[in-house]
Amino acid sequence: MASLTTITAEEIADLPRLYRNNLINSLSGFKSANLIGTMDSEGQANLAVFSSVTHFGSDPPLLGFVTRPHVVPRHTYENLKAMRHFTVNHVHKDFTLAAHQSSAKYDKDVDEFEICGLTKHFGDLHPAPYVAEAKVKIGLKFEAEYAIKENGTILVLGRIVEILTEKALIKEDGFVDLYEAGTVTINGLDAYLSPKRIARYSYARPNQGIKEI
Amino acid sequence: MASLTTITAEEIADLPRLYRNNLINSLSGFKSANLIGTMDSEGQANLAVFSSVTHFGSDPPLLGFVTRPHVVPRHTYENLKAMRHFTVNHVHKDFTLAAHQSSAKYDKDVDEFEICGLTKHFGDLHPAPYVAEAKVKIGLKFEAEYAIKENGTILVLGRIVEILTEKALIKEDGFVDLYEAGTVTINGLDAYLSPKRIARYSYARPNQGIKEI
Repeated sequence: MASLTTITAEEIADLPRLYRNNLINSLSGFKSANLIGTMDSEGQANLAVFSSVTHFGSDPPLLGFVTRPHVVPRHTYENLKAMRHFTVNHVHKDFTLAAHQSSAKYDKDVDEFEICGLTKHFGDLHPAPYVAEAKVKIGLKFEAEYAIKENGTILVLGRIVEILTEKALIKEDGFVDLYEAGTVTINGLDAYLSPKRIARYSYARPNQGIKEI
Repeated sequence: MASLTTITAEEIADLPRLYRNNLINSLSGFKSANLIGTMDSEGQANLAVFSSVTHFGSDPPLLGFVTRPHVVPRHTYENLKAMRHFTVNHVHKDFTLAAHQSSAKYDKDVDEFEICGLTKHFGDLHPAPYVAEAKVKIGLKFEAEYAIKENGTILVLGRIVEILTEKALIKEDGFVDLYEAGTVTINGLDAYLSPKRIARYSYARPNQGIKEI
C-alpha cells in the first residue's frame, strides 16, 4: 500500500476556497451528470447541469437534487417552484461540452438550450422542456423540499410522472443500460468520464456465492 | 433520433417490484460506489456498500447518504447514531465483488470486513474502521439527519473530520483524480463500471469559450 497522507478538518478549513471546492467535490466518488430543464410562467426555458441528482426511492419513484437557492443556479429552483415540474436528462459523451457550458451564470432571459446548441422536446403532461439529445429523459413533479440548515442548501425531491427513453436500453428485468446509452459521470466540479462495464452481479446473500448476470 | 417509448406514472406503479426497482434505480444516472464502515459500542465492526453518497457542501465539508432505518442496512445507521462516527471508502475496480458481497443481510455479529476479505484500518480520531484497500478514505462525524416523510427513508449528513488518501491523487488545484485511483461507479442496483476520462473543462462563463484543462 502506498503511503497515505492525512488531511484534518482544521487543514480543510484553512485551504484556499477553490482548492477546497475541488478537493471536497471529488470525495463523494463519481457523480451523476444530468441537465435539469424548467420553464417559467412566461414561457422562458432554462437548462442547467447538476451533479447531485440522487435516487431516493422506487415506490413512489423519487429523485432528489441539491441546490443553492440564493446563489446560482436559482433559475432552476424558482421555475420548478412556480411551475411545479422539471425534467432530468442524462448527459452523454457526445455533448459533455454543451452540458458544461450550461453551468455559466446566464441572465434569466437567456435560453440555455439555444446557447448550448441543444434541442427542446416537449411531452404532453407538463410544460418543462426535455433535452431531445438525451436518451434517458425523466419528467418530474415537485414533491417536497428540505432546507439543509447546516449550509443553507435545499434538497428538492421530485416524483417521476413519466420516463421517455429508447426501448432497447431497458433490459428484461427493468435495468436501464447506461453504458449502452453513452451516459457520462462527473468527477469533482468539471471532469467528465465515460464508464466501461466491469460486471453486473446477482443479489448478494450470506453464505452464497455471487454470480455475474 | 431513435423512437422513444414513454412509461407513465401509472404504468410504473403497476410494474412488478423487482422490475420497478431495477428501472427506477437506473434513472438518476451513474452513482457513487462507497463502503460505509462503522463500529458498535461493543467493538463489532460493520461494513456495507452504498450508492447514495452525495456531496452536500464544501464549507463546512458535508457528505450525505440515504438509508432505510427499519430495513437493511440498519446496522450502519444504528452504529453511527450510537458512536457518532462513520467512514466512507471508495470502491475500486479490483474489489467490486467484495464490495457487492457486503450488501448481503448479515447478522449483527458478523464482521463484513472478514467475510468480504477486506482489511480494517484505524485512524487516531474516532473508532469507525476504514477499508485499508480504499485509496480514498473519509472519516465523518454525524452532523444531522432529515426524515424523508415521502417514503420513510432518512438522509444522514456527516461532516468530514479527516481525509486519508495517496498524495499523488490530489492535483495542484485540489482535484482528486478518481480515474487514477481506480474508483468505480454503479448503474442501478448491481452493475459496476470503470470510468475513462473524456475531458476536464475550465469554469464556464457566458460569452467565453471553454478550454480543456
